[in-house]
Amino acid sequence: MDKRLAQLPWGAPVNFLGLPEEEAHDLDAAGVVILPVPYEATVSYMGGTRFGPRRILEASRYIELYDHELDTEPHTVGVHTLPELLLSGSGPEVALGELRKACDALQAQGKFVIMLGGEHSISAPPIQAHARRLGDKRLSVLQLDAHGDLRPKYEGTSFSHACVMYRVHQEVDLVPVGIRAITSEERALMRAKNIPTIFGHELDAEGQWIERALASLGPDVYVTIDIDYFDPSLVPSTGTPEPGGGTWYPTLRLLDRVFAERHVVGVDVVELAPIPGVVAPDFLAAKLVYKLVAYHQRARHADSRRR
Amino acid sequence: MDKRLAQLPWGAPVNFLGLPEEEAHDLDAAGVVILPVPYEATVSYMGGTRFGPRRILEASRYIELYDHELDTEPHTVGVHTLPELLLSGSGPEVALGELRKACDALQAQGKFVIMLGGEHSISAPPIQAHARRLGDKRLSVLQLDAHGDLRPKYEGTSFSHACVMYRVHQEVDLVPVGIRAITSEERALMRAKNIPTIFGHELDAEGQWIERALASLGPDVYVTIDIDYFDPSLVPSTGTPEPGGGTWYPTLRLLDRVFAERHVVGVDVVELAPIPGVVAPDFLAAKLVYKLVAYHQRARHADSRRR
Amino acid sequence: MDKRLAQLPWGAPVNFLGLPEEEAHDLDAAGVVILPVPYEATVSYMGGTRFGPRRILEASRYIELYDHELDTEPHTVGVHTLPELLLSGSGPEVALGELRKACDALQAQGKFVIMLGGEHSISAPPIQAHARRLGDKRLSVLQLDAHGDLRPKYEGTSFSHACVMYRVHQEVDLVPVGIRAITSEERALMRAKNIPTIFGHELDAEGQWIERALASLGPDVYVTIDIDYFDPSLVPSTGTPEPGGGTWYPTLRLLDRVFAERHVVGVDVVELAPIPGVVAPDFLAAKLVYKLVAYHQRARHADSRRR
Amino acid sequence: MDKRLAQLPWGAPVNFLGLPEEEAHDLDAAGVVILPVPYEATVSYMGGTRFGPRRILEASRYIELYDHELDTEPHTVGVHTLPELLLSGSGPEVALGELRKACDALQAQGKFVIMLGGEHSISAPPIQAHARRLGDKRLSVLQLDAHGDLRPKYEGTSFSHACVMYRVHQEVDLVPVGIRAITSEERALMRAKNIPTIFGHELDAEGQWIERALASLGPDVYVTIDIDYFDPSLVPSTGTPEPGGGTWYPTLRLLDRVFAERHVVGVDVVELAPIPGVVAPDFLAAKLVYKLVAYHQRARHADSRRR
Amino acid sequence: MDKRLAQLPWGAPVNFLGLPEEEAHDLDAAGVVILPVPYEATVSYMGGTRFGPRRILEASRYIELYDHELDTEPHTVGVHTLPELLLSGSGPEVALGELRKACDALQAQGKFVIMLGGEHSISAPPIQAHARRLGDKRLSVLQLDAHGDLRPKYEGTSFSHACVMYRVHQEVDLVPVGIRAITSEERALMRAKNIPTIFGHELDAEGQWIERALASLGPDVYVTIDIDYFDPSLVPSTGTPEPGGGTWYPTLRLLDRVFAERHVVGVDVVELAPIPGVVAPDFLAAKLVYKLVAYHQRARHADSRRR
Amino acid sequence: MDKRLAQLPWGAPVNFLGLPEEEAHDLDAAGVVILPVPYEATVSYMGGTRFGPRRILEASRYIELYDHELDTEPHTVGVHTLPELLLSGSGPEVALGELRKACDALQAQGKFVIMLGGEHSISAPPIQAHARRLGDKRLSVLQLDAHGDLRPKYEGTSFSHACVMYRVHQEVDLVPVGIRAITSEERALMRAKNIPTIFGHELDAEGQWIERALASLGPDVYVTIDIDYFDPSLVPSTGTPEPGGGTWYPTLRLLDRVFAERHVVGVDVVELAPIPGVVAPDFLAAKLVYKLVAYHQRARHADSRRR
Repeated sequence: MDKRLAQLPWGAPVNFLGLPEEEAHDLDAAGVVILPVPYEATVSYMGGTRFGPRRILEASRYIELYDHELDTEPHTVGVHTLPELLLSGSGPEVALGELRKACDALQAQGKFVIMLGGEHSISAPPIQAHARRLGDKRLSVLQLDAHGDLRPKYEGTSFSHACVMYRVHQEVDLVPVGIRAITSEERALMRAKNIPTIFGHELDAEGQWIERALASLGPDVYVTIDIDYFDPSLVPSTGTPEPGGGTWYPTLRLLDRVFAERHVVGVDVVELAPIPGVVAPDFLAAKLVYKLVAYHQRARHADSRRR
Repeated sequence: MDKRLAQLPWGAPVNFLGLPEEEAHDLDAAGVVILPVPYEATVSYMGGTRFGPRRILEASRYIELYDHELDTEPHTVGVHTLPELLLSGSGPEVALGELRKACDALQAQGKFVIMLGGEHSISAPPIQAHARRLGDKRLSVLQLDAHGDLRPKYEGTSFSHACVMYRVHQEVDLVPVGIRAITSEERALMRAKNIPTIFGHELDAEGQWIERALASLGPDVYVTIDIDYFDPSLVPSTGTPEPGGGTWYPTLRLLDRVFAERHVVGVDVVELAPIPGVVAPDFLAAKLVYKLVAYHQRARHADSRRR
Repeated sequence: MDKRLAQLPWGAPVNFLGLPEEEAHDLDAAGVVILPVPYEATVSYMGGTRFGPRRILEASRYIELYDHELDTEPHTVGVHTLPELLLSGSGPEVALGELRKACDALQAQGKFVIMLGGEHSISAPPIQAHARRLGDKRLSVLQLDAHGDLRPKYEGTSFSHACVMYRVHQEVDLVPVGIRAITSEERALMRAKNIPTIFGHELDAEGQWIERALASLGPDVYVTIDIDYFDPSLVPSTGTPEPGGGTWYPTLRLLDRVFAERHVVGVDVVELAPIPGVVAPDFLAAKLVYKLVAYHQRARHADSRRR
Repeated sequence: MDKRLAQLPWGAPVNFLGLPEEEAHDLDAAGVVILPVPYEATVSYMGGTRFGPRRILEASRYIELYDHELDTEPHTVGVHTLPELLLSGSGPEVALGELRKACDALQAQGKFVIMLGGEHSISAPPIQAHARRLGDKRLSVLQLDAHGDLRPKYEGTSFSHACVMYRVHQEVDLVPVGIRAITSEERALMRAKNIPTIFGHELDAEGQWIERALASLGPDVYVTIDIDYFDPSLVPSTGTPEPGGGTWYPTLRLLDRVFAERHVVGVDVVELAPIPGVVAPDFLAAKLVYKLVAYHQRARHADSRRR
Repeated sequence: MDKRLAQLPWGAPVNFLGLPEEEAHDLDAAGVVILPVPYEATVSYMGGTRFGPRRILEASRYIELYDHELDTEPHTVGVHTLPELLLSGSGPEVALGELRKACDALQAQGKFVIMLGGEHSISAPPIQAHARRLGDKRLSVLQLDAHGDLRPKYEGTSFSHACVMYRVHQEVDLVPVGIRAITSEERALMRAKNIPTIFGHELDAEGQWIERALASLGPDVYVTIDIDYFDPSLVPSTGTPEPGGGTWYPTLRLLDRVFAERHVVGVDVVELAPIPGVVAPDFLAAKLVYKLVAYHQRARHADSRRR
Repeated sequence: MDKRLAQLPWGAPVNFLGLPEEEAHDLDAAGVVILPVPYEATVSYMGGTRFGPRRILEASRYIELYDHELDTEPHTVGVHTLPELLLSGSGPEVALGELRKACDALQAQGKFVIMLGGEHSISAPPIQAHARRLGDKRLSVLQLDAHGDLRPKYEGTSFSHACVMYRVHQEVDLVPVGIRAITSEERALMRAKNIPTIFGHELDAEGQWIERALASLGPDVYVTIDIDYFDPSLVPSTGTPEPGGGTWYPTLRLLDRVFAERHVVGVDVVELAPIPGVVAPDFLAAKLVYKLVAYHQRARHADSRRR
């Protein structure tokens, strides 16, 4: 850009946090990669999850880069935002296959990926990719969610958002938290497989559920956050909002400890279906993502000091 | 329907829970009857309560039929949804007279009726019908509400939603819970009549208010839930939202015990004024109604075992 | 229903026009069948076409049954509304296959079907079914639309809404009207195949375009109306609104003559993506559908008199 | 107000046009009186007409006081805005009786009243009051409307907005313009009574309908404008929007001539049901009202010069 | 007004609480003055703070005049609502200078002013005016806020809403409460100046933070409430909503004690940016303001008895 | 980007038309530069013009790159989108000074700039820059607008959007088109200065106004399009929508001829204030901008052939 132009007060580019181009454009140097996947194919009560990533990015530009709870500037870990990945419209199997390729390529580069949905069905490919990479070690999946997502099939397909955890439950150790809407078949499966579920009404104020969740997690953890985990008073912007969900600080406390006490291999935040004109939930999602960046940065730091 | 057609994946009909026709259509066999009364005549800050029943029905189709807290499938009690009852436009007295006829006819058939409003003025007819049926026994009315609704007259009529509890307070024992907006005249009446009111700021976390409410209730109880009882963070969709209201799980705990420890003769859920594009409150109302079905089913069950 | 209940002023059921159950429930006697297909899988600028059928039905209940332009009561032809057809989530090919089965079954019964979308991709199955039934006779397809929908492939699939007319253009004679957004490849195809297109800027006030459109149509016609054909001032509620579209009375004039001067075998109205709180476009779509019923009834009438 | 305070740039008060207090507060000196009647009791597809007057007043504050088409400042006629008249909630008969008293009192003072609704049922009292005052002279009523409003009864009452013209049609000469939704009974009445109706599809561009409407009007005219007369592209904000309505300049041309060539005794603008966040229709209604002020001022002027 | 007119049921005027004219119009007699300042010049994520005062006034008309927690009718203190103060568009320095003049004039009259914003930058003039009037005595400022607002400059100006507390922090003792979004520079300033900040995550349920806040306040206190202090579940209607904010009753408990145990010289409630169609947050703001009136009235009462 | 990643179906970047990076990123090679200026400081009825540029860019990604009316692909001229220019918050004079610097720098590079607003006040700097560059030659300004914008001062500043044409009217030849809201002072100025105004009611269907507008324009023309020029049925999304505005095809016909028969030096499209959830007007604005690109490309082409 011309010098005279360069001096003018240009706005932030559209990436996570609105980081200046020179800081944001280098994928190689980035410690964290934001992968927006605006995939929406199977159906719930309200729609619009394909606008989730875009609205999270927009809101993220108004987040303070400083985290006063950790007293750090987490973005210094290097945060690169990829373009939106537009999965095929020829059916969920093909689409999720494409996503799997992206996950494999990014994992091969050793990136810490934060995927933004889009509907929950997109969580299966990264989870499966991580599970395979871990080989003999068993991957734990911390699932913050209102729904079980443990159906074998839904609306004619086993690739629905309502089936995503069923798809992976054989390969990984599931730890569902905040669940408050399931079928009797899902309940039976939870019992049969001893899935250590923490239901919505068990999210007590004293935080015993946090200990329970931690105790169920193995050393390597993937975190999938269906935004409908949160109480609809905080996040009404989702396909099937269920009363009785998680709240802000206790959830942060859980995530803080998971990142501090386990090795988190990847995360996703899915199912935000923005309501036009109501930005608070978008902002919560964006801030949640930045908290994940912060916890990851601290863990990496601790890691590198340990060595 | 033609066989070839019948095999296709048709969507759920528009009734409470979206139950299949063969299950939902039999009024005689049903244990629970949903009565939608989209009546809206007197005025509050925002309007739209006449869309309440329709939106509750729509949302209800996305509720899981299984209740994991009670480990039951409450809909097996038989749930029949009546068409909307369109009350006369010639004034509240005539309109509520029509409703009274509907209540009498349904009570005569021994149905457990869950009425969906519509504005709060519609609660008087079913309450009065139950009170009369009970004869010498005194009916208790558990009123979950932000407002007292104890005015003798409002905007030129004693049939206003702001007067509904005044209309019945002589015939029944009122137990108002969650109240946080009253006139000094209503306060004086509460004192004069020793109405055992639990105010909004008394809804403490420890649940002592639940014991207090229970202690005030006689053996036979009608439950009227003005949706503005809930905190506006949960239900902004109502005519005059008042901060400082009830929350989800504690309210369920109260209702759970009322159904378990008293004989509940009927209920209503009124004053939902849906905001276009914001479905979370509609969903909460629908789930609340299904919880009432669940508590009723369990009580009936217990009852039949006792015999 | 109990006699006492039956006398009360119950509201209209949720079918097209809100017809009373006894009138609406008989599929066999109906001359017109409304088939709601809330299918939404491929993506445009705004979403929500899966709510189109429901909102059209809701709005239709407020339409006067009398048509003062034709001086008739078109509903007397018998109008039966099917439940929503929920197509499979396992990909567009499977989904549209299911729809094809429904179309075949309904055509076998000799029904005049008005299909309500949902996205435009659903028009291919009924068109193909009609084309096959006509055998040697060539089917004309009158396509009211803003977009060409003549792409061979879009977002990885040939079953996208952007491809629907390409899918059928070999089997039928296309007559696109109102087109104002195409790719250069679509333009080339139109030229190569001599598709007699009437562009948006050619919809002159004098109605010469109406003559041109009629002249291009053979004796048997299927009418597919992508609601984005209309000017966005009338219908902003669609995925990719394009300025410069059709207006109300001239469009009615065209349709009136097509039904009067050709044999219309079926129609669809698709791509309505309702905006919460803005009902006027839903109402326009509902009234348009009723106009189609009216034109069909008159044609049938004329037909039966001719015999 | 304190001198130092008085010098500060205070905003306009909430009256029609936002006129300064000293100009707006004198009812006696005013030539035009704005009467807001936020009455909404009977029901249509969407609600909210009770917010109509408030939103018209709010929008009116952004209208330029100068009318460049007439080259005048119409507000100099003196425009006084009354408070909202809150009619009784005890039924339409009582409510409209109260309104009748207001009309009689204002007519007794010789005021030119512009009433803002609220639902259409409020038009009957001022029309009846004017009809009676005229004695032997017959009042013409120019009704700009999408609906006939000629039903004897609707939803149990003859005071519904759907009945308002039936209520007065014996006492006055009706001239309905823009009609496009009626029952067969209304059509029969129109024929029986030779009501010179101009239907929506007859609003041709050349303006012949304007001549026809004028020819049907006697010397004394009351103008009632149901805002749904306008095409929904201009005014989607109404209870039952019907495509194919009136447009801006032709409608002004009609009103211009009616005021110039007849004696207009009063007007109302009703049925605006504002959509939150969509202000253009409110603005149109406000500007329409100011046009009526302008035409009235010019007529008075002409009148006074003639004497 | 004419007697016949005067008897009719006219609605409440548009002032705070909708008080009747005779009660509301006397500035001299009023103990409390509401000053609406719809100033919005600097930019945040969402806009619309200039509609804040209007919507608070509108909502306030539906508040009960009786306060059942204090068992008083606070409005009897006399509440006068000024017109909106429209500050200059020629830049924030000039605009805030105009506001300073208004503050000085009102303080000179000994009024207790409740200012309604508008953006937060408007808090500086009244704070500075009070600070100067106190002379040697140091003014404490209780700042309920999500953001620090301690930047020296933002978007090219030191008069931004993001700078308002920086502007005054040298002259007064700041006590920020609810803070959860700051830059590292703001954090450094807080440390350097020992600003006794209570962060969002420190708003514990036991209320220890209330004691801490009180302990930091001197005898003379100005209270500025940026509405984004509240949790976005309660108030999504603000420019940059931050999860993890204050809740209703605990905040009231703090304010109750501040008014009871300190001398509060003035207050403001700013940054409400109403969402069209979502009135609950407006209502919360209005009720908050009335609570401030109530606490002030009680303090004045106590004061006058003490003398 | 890694090869494996590069093969995946990434979405379009956020620039005008969503052009691929390699095509869009080269400012030097671009024939057209899009300059987004989300400046919003002075106030109108509704706000939100600062979101205009962003929403136009978002909508533009769904525009077909082919223009079937001109049978060209206009984007091949090279279209570079600059970041948003965030003007100073310290007052309009400083802010517009910054913008002037940007205009000068871009003109020095010979770019054809299409500026996207933001409020109308931003049109003055580019107009003044062009006027100065033209030296002795007089610049014509074609102003498509509902308002005169000819006030010397508004809300305390001469830099308001309501003053923008007054600011430049001495230096250039104004040709206002579509005007339908002015003060009497503006009318007097138009008369005194012989400003050849075409009012809203003069936009006849035959297009005589197009000839009149062309006849008033000198050889060098700047085009400023206040989006409120369009009829609110097409663009309700603006600060002060005025009924009776311009329509789509006639406006294109005017612009087509202006670019063909004059030398257009620059353009802007301002005052779009997007309504959340209503995208049609954003889409119209985006398509309008692309039409300007098309007309410019054709003119350049013709130009280069002429040489």
